Amino acid sequence: MALIVQKYGGSSVANAGKIMRVARRVVAAKKKGHQMVVVVSAMGDMTDDLIELADQITKLPSEREMDMLLSTGEQVSVALLAMAIHQLGVKAMSFTGPQVGIITDRFHTKARILDISTERIQKALKEQNVVIVAGFQGKTVSEEITTLGRGGSDLTAVALAKALRARHCEIYTDVDGIYTADPRIVSDARKIDVISYDEILELAALGAKVMHSRSVEVGKKFNVPIYVRNSMNNREGTLITKETKKMEEVVVSGVALAEDEAKITIFQVPDRPGSAAQLFKKFADANINIDMIIQNKTKTNTTDISFTVFKNELARALAVVQKAAKAVKAKSVVCDENIAKVSVVGVGMRSHSGIASRMFGALAKKKINIDMISTSEIKISCVVDGDKGREALRVLHGEFKLGKK
Amino acid sequence: MALIVQKYGGSSVANAGKIMRVARRVVAAKKKGHQMVVVVSAMGDMTDDLIELADQITKLPSEREMDMLLSTGEQVSVALLAMAIHQLGVKAMSFTGPQVGIITDRFHTKARILDISTERIQKALKEQNVVIVAGFQGKTVSEEITTLGRGGSDLTAVALAKALRARHCEIYTDVDGIYTADPRIVSDARKIDVISYDEILELAALGAKVMHSRSVEVGKKFNVPIYVRNSMNNREGTLITKETKKMEEVVVSGVALAEDEAKITIFQVPDRPGSAAQLFKKFADANINIDMIIQNKTKTNTTDISFTVFKNELARALAVVQKAAKAVKAKSVVCDENIAKVSVVGVGMRSHSGIASRMFGALAKKKINIDMISTSEIKISCVVDGDKGREALRVLHGEFKLGKK
Repeated sequence: MALIVQKYGGSSVANAGKIMRVARRVVAAKKKGHQMVVVVSAMGDMTDDLIELADQITKLPSEREMDMLLSTGEQVSVALLAMAIHQLGVKAMSFTGPQVGIITDRFHTKARILDISTERIQKALKEQNVVIVAGFQGKTVSEEITTLGRGGSDLTAVALAKALRARHCEIYTDVDGIYTADPRIVSDARKIDVISYDEILELAALGAKVMHSRSVEVGKKFNVPIYVRNSMNNREGTLITKETKKMEEVVVSGVALAEDEAKITIFQVPDRPGSAAQLFKKFADANINIDMIIQNKTKTNTTDISFTVFKNELARALAVVQKAAKAVKAKSVVCDENIAKVSVVGVGMRSHSGIASRMFGALAKKKINIDMISTSEIKISCVVDGDKGREALRVLHGEFKLGKK
Repeated sequence: MALIVQKYGGSSVANAGKIMRVARRVVAAKKKGHQMVVVVSAMGDMTDDLIELADQITKLPSEREMDMLLSTGEQVSVALLAMAIHQLGVKAMSFTGPQVGIITDRFHTKARILDISTERIQKALKEQNVVIVAGFQGKTVSEEITTLGRGGSDLTAVALAKALRARHCEIYTDVDGIYTADPRIVSDARKIDVISYDEILELAALGAKVMHSRSVEVGKKFNVPIYVRNSMNNREGTLITKETKKMEEVVVSGVALAEDEAKITIFQVPDRPGSAAQLFKKFADANINIDMIIQNKTKTNTTDISFTVFKNELARALAVVQKAAKAVKAKSVVCDENIAKVSVVGVGMRSHSGIASRMFGALAKKKINIDMISTSEIKISCVVDGDKGREALRVLHGEFKLGKK
């Protein structure tokens, strides 16, 4: 008998029938003798509907009031799931984030969890209840309702698993687990059985639509095993866990493609100490996320600086960049939206050499030109022409023999 | 400068446009220099939609989970209204019932308010905010979310007005105030300017669709003046206040029609002490509401007992009555669904005599037969044939000269 935390996303509870299906799954686990804590997101489109309502009233809603508004979505889900579990003859109690004492900081719409008090959950579990907790939300010490931002329900689940010392956390989604590549692009992509936190963090950051980084970081920090599973079947899914020796035998675990970035180049930045620092401080002040940065000294007195930003921040970034470039007396700013970033990730890179040259070689053989390169201990990323991104992903997936055997 | 509590019902906040209109009304009052506390119900059909969702999952939802589910409706409204007020450039903060410390007992779906702590509202008011509070909801001392049942938002408003020592409470609805009779039935029904708590309590209990009794009772107990007004115009509405000498000059304030009751007669109940007590204890145990009761001794050893129940409880009531009648060895049970109850209400009855005979005479002149009669200090009710109810209402409205001059 173990304590297990499960989390179901919005698509898994999108209507009454789906909620009943989740209830049956929860009850099946409970009947195996486990103590069950279930975290639920808002139903299907409910959050979008609420945002649309707010948008009809104001284009600049207060973040405090957005949290007040959006936190209702998960509250509806937990109540309905509790009713569905009752309908199956099993005891269940639903709770909001504030009710179970998920305490956050004061940053509305993107709050961070500071503390979780588990007394109330423990009491309900002791009384044989399935405990259902609204994901994505908490409260400040002064009882203000907050939400946790993107991936917030996953975060609630992993943080609860930690606080309750659960055996593990199960994240239910509409795919069978985490794949060696996006199966919509790479037809022979294979589901991964076990993967390390660090690899998932690189894959998530690199554009693979898996779990949000924040919840994986919490899982890593507190060593919470996380299963990513399909809510529509009983397959084993992917286990995200701490790195083992065995994992290193696999050279590359997965490949990822990001098509949501654009490249900005500032030409002929005067080459003196502090120029780059001055530029990037301006971007940081403007809260613009920079991904890859390449500096290339081309002439004697000047240097070219390229970096990538997310396309949805591009307009804002360009305005800042142009001003900053002028301030440091750079020559010009050029922007390229037609880029793609392909990456290979694997803890095996720590012990295997030659991955980079294999990667570059495979791309070269297909005449895919590499524009930028960046590396970390366990990943290598290349920016290529936007039209070549998907082909590059397939080439690398084949090169490292990630497909089905 | 005064503190005013306003309450807007679901139809007043049914969509974004209507919420903006409410916001403008609130801001206009705020700009007159008043401190504003606004109580809001769930948007239009939202509560019904949530009930329908629950109904798709279970026919017997847990009351605790229904409260968890339904309390989201008001939370959505308060957030949107706060945004709408911000949009007009005025400070506003929304709160749930639990957040402002509306403490109730543990009876889910029909909780009673035990206490209201006003610190948080006072603080927000002091910071120049319009304070928006979700109606209909509270929490128990152990942080369980509760709802207040029918008329719950009115109750929140009146109770807040009392706790905050507001100058008065304004209840906004989609009619101009309280009328001498239902204007849909009596075409020359007149809006009443001032009426006493007791009269409203009789009218509400008698089937006039005005305010719910519980909130008027709280208003009466703590002497909170209540205005009932139309959210679509700026008319003065009806003031519900404590009885004054002047009110007694009006013999009859209003007439009401109830068509939602049915009459049950138990024939030939053995006439010995305790028979009636034994019968009605059974109804009380089964939680069936009995309205009028008439006992009529017809034969030497037996008596006939008639009473009215609400039609929506009729099936359940009949089952209990038939069993109970058998237990006391009564002869038979007969039920009549085709009845109507007409009533005249007025504090003037205390000082004027002859109202009853005028009422009976007016009905007799129109050949409307009276089946049952019951009276209180300030009202007289007659049960008549169901098909004659509306005509009877019009007759009485004319007899007591309640129409427009």
